[in-house]
Amino acid sequence: MIVPRLIERKRDGLRLEEDQWHELIAAYADGRVPDYQMSALMMAIHFRGLDAPEMAALTDAMLKSGSTLDLGHLGRPRIDKHSTGGVGDKVSLLIAPLAASLGIAVPMMSGRGLGHTGGTLDKLESIPGFRTALSLAETTRQIESIGCALIGQTDEIAPADKKMYALRDTSATVEVVPLIAASIMSKKLAESLTGLVVDVKRGSGSFITNEKSEIALARAMIELGANHGCPVVALFTAMDRPLGFACGNSVEVVEAIRALKGDGPEDLMTVTYALGAEMLLLAGLASTAADAWRMMRVAIESGSALEKLGQIIEAQGGNPRVTDDLGLLPRAAFERQFLAGRSGYILRVAPRIVGHGIIALGGGRRTIEDSIDPSVGFVITAKPGMLVEKGEPLAMIHARDEQGLAIGERVLREAIIIGDGAEASLELVSYRVTATSRERWKAPAPNGQ
Amino acid sequence: MIVPRLIERKRDGLRLEEDQWHELIAAYADGRVPDYQMSALMMAIHFRGLDAPEMAALTDAMLKSGSTLDLGHLGRPRIDKHSTGGVGDKVSLLIAPLAASLGIAVPMMSGRGLGHTGGTLDKLESIPGFRTALSLAETTRQIESIGCALIGQTDEIAPADKKMYALRDTSATVEVVPLIAASIMSKKLAESLTGLVVDVKRGSGSFITNEKSEIALARAMIELGANHGCPVVALFTAMDRPLGFACGNSVEVVEAIRALKGDGPEDLMTVTYALGAEMLLLAGLASTAADAWRMMRVAIESGSALEKLGQIIEAQGGNPRVTDDLGLLPRAAFERQFLAGRSGYILRVAPRIVGHGIIALGGGRRTIEDSIDPSVGFVITAKPGMLVEKGEPLAMIHARDEQGLAIGERVLREAIIIGDGAEASLELVSYRVTATSRERWKAPAPNGQ
Repeated sequence: MIVPRLIERKRDGLRLEEDQWHELIAAYADGRVPDYQMSALMMAIHFRGLDAPEMAALTDAMLKSGSTLDLGHLGRPRIDKHSTGGVGDKVSLLIAPLAASLGIAVPMMSGRGLGHTGGTLDKLESIPGFRTALSLAETTRQIESIGCALIGQTDEIAPADKKMYALRDTSATVEVVPLIAASIMSKKLAESLTGLVVDVKRGSGSFITNEKSEIALARAMIELGANHGCPVVALFTAMDRPLGFACGNSVEVVEAIRALKGDGPEDLMTVTYALGAEMLLLAGLASTAADAWRMMRVAIESGSALEKLGQIIEAQGGNPRVTDDLGLLPRAAFERQFLAGRSGYILRVAPRIVGHGIIALGGGRRTIEDSIDPSVGFVITAKPGMLVEKGEPLAMIHARDEQGLAIGERVLREAIIIGDGAEASLELVSYRVTATSRERWKAPAPNGQ
Repeated sequence: MIVPRLIERKRDGLRLEEDQWHELIAAYADGRVPDYQMSALMMAIHFRGLDAPEMAALTDAMLKSGSTLDLGHLGRPRIDKHSTGGVGDKVSLLIAPLAASLGIAVPMMSGRGLGHTGGTLDKLESIPGFRTALSLAETTRQIESIGCALIGQTDEIAPADKKMYALRDTSATVEVVPLIAASIMSKKLAESLTGLVVDVKRGSGSFITNEKSEIALARAMIELGANHGCPVVALFTAMDRPLGFACGNSVEVVEAIRALKGDGPEDLMTVTYALGAEMLLLAGLASTAADAWRMMRVAIESGSALEKLGQIIEAQGGNPRVTDDLGLLPRAAFERQFLAGRSGYILRVAPRIVGHGIIALGGGRRTIEDSIDPSVGFVITAKPGMLVEKGEPLAMIHARDEQGLAIGERVLREAIIIGDGAEASLELVSYRVTATSRERWKAPAPNGQ
């Protein structure tokens, strides 16, 4: 294998063979291929793309660079949910215990926040004592005992992906559809799944902001799953505004716990139920979406979903009493309401500005090595389309100090736009894509609920 | 400066500003920007190109990453000749002493062979004792005393280019016109030139093999020179077959010395005179090409060009007696004639195959660290269009051992194609491109000679 010749082929629009991908990725994982060759190759992939067999070979090679979970002995459906990333997206915190409480095994591997988006691992770690760095053996035992584990990508799982992911972030090859698809699926396929639901975020706050790429990404993940016997369903959901109210880390955990107690923001619940229903349908535990929604409502009303969250927290070293006493979560020393500067309609709540604002408050990372303050963030109750009065509270700023409050003010002044007419915003859940169909998404009929 | 954002801009077809190029290249030269970011950027440049101000800024930044010669005090024209690289191209060995013997200061910085092409430095170093690693101070002194120095790129000159050049070779970004132009010109502009002649090689044995890129490269170098007050003239010459007969290292020095004694192959002499005439015209030492050709013929017939070569060799630590006694040059232990396998016309002598064949014999590098055997190579007297008889000698193989002879046989069997009809080959010197014109090249009329 002469690596510059392989890069050259891709650069010139030719394809690499399956064994070339395997040899290349194995050599990259163990350091025989340097980063500067991989980054040049990934830039060539940005321009030339990968065909379906190449993407499958790349994904498979990344998957095989590490170990995988083996959960076949459970005799239960094993379903995960993955989001392409957004602001205020705490669905994983709700949906994992919810699905697990209904009999699905959920081996959920999440990431940290990077760029303007938050990360499930960071949110979880705002729970005092919570450990996300479980070994595969620990993960397996925990899923056997309580049906769910919320973990980070260890060095055991797809190490080639881990190296490539860090490299992409520093070499401007993040938003490359085949690389995103291969990265996600190399990790998800390591989870020994019988099904996967993908939340493809759309709009200004998502990484991919054109419809053609969104569809290509969904189709790529569906096809990669199918190659490995793992059916994938994708829902397209809105990320032109934050999801729910809370944006940060511990503020999002608070919102998630409240939601599991039946008191969640409407948009958050709709997205959670929509994705959760796909998990239940893939699992064969519900036969219609209406059934699935009913089952999830019962799991919340009965307290069993919240109880499952408590079990997960306890199993992973966290203080399970946080589900009863939200005061145990880190809370920012300074809080201040943000008021409407004028009367009118909320035209926009810009998620990228909010996400970068969390970083400015100290609640996100500029580089992968940064540590974060879990307590800071925003709780933004204003939603596009709302009619507000001047002086009305639109949000709460959570900051470390007075300076943080001032930063938060400036951020929200820029992010929340009030005007005279209403602006169109994206449908909350717009499309449902499976291996065989792409259709407009519809909530189950009220009589079915 | 956030480097991934700069890469992103170029990737998305936007341009970088002059100060961004300067900051980026300075940071790369001193190690603050890693190779993996530079290789991704160079791949993006492959796809997106650079506009003229960007190329000028990049070249200038590369130039300013190091020191430059200062030869303004000489009060003489300072002209160099550069070739884009080929097989059997020993023109530099002839033209530097020839031009210097006629009063031009020639500060010639050359490279090593890489890929299938030979390098002037490697050829020179086959002369026992010859040193090419001169400091800028030594180079200046030597040009003051004898008018010419034949040197390699030291760490003093354009170190950013040196790093980028090595990186391009390993990341499949060699054949990128703006990077080639910036690389060449950042070094040439460090030579304190009053003019530059560029030999743009065409055909299967050159790095760039389409006419559009050849013209773009010539125009880019002409424009970069003009920005720095250095007029550039480009000639397009044929590299669909080797130039002259000898292909290797010491065999090429032998041919060059014989040529300076008046016994050079016709194609080699035509290319040398064509390029040399442009040097004399740029220098203002000749007013017509015919005058220039006459001057060069006299310099060879009188022995003054050969005498200048002897002075250069002596000044750089080599044994100047090689010009009288070719037996002092390294000579391969094994030599064998290569005979025509059938009668017919020579259709092709493929330079890439010959170039790779020299490497296979041990006379070229696979990686920049390899050492080479200066004695091995080929002397191929067969030229496309020649009618040959079966069994007629077409070439001499110079090898280290019997195995080398066998390799050489196989290489020439593949490189030299004999058939029934003649195949068209490229015109030896086809175009002449200046800042204001592009015209078909014509040899001076015989009566002018």
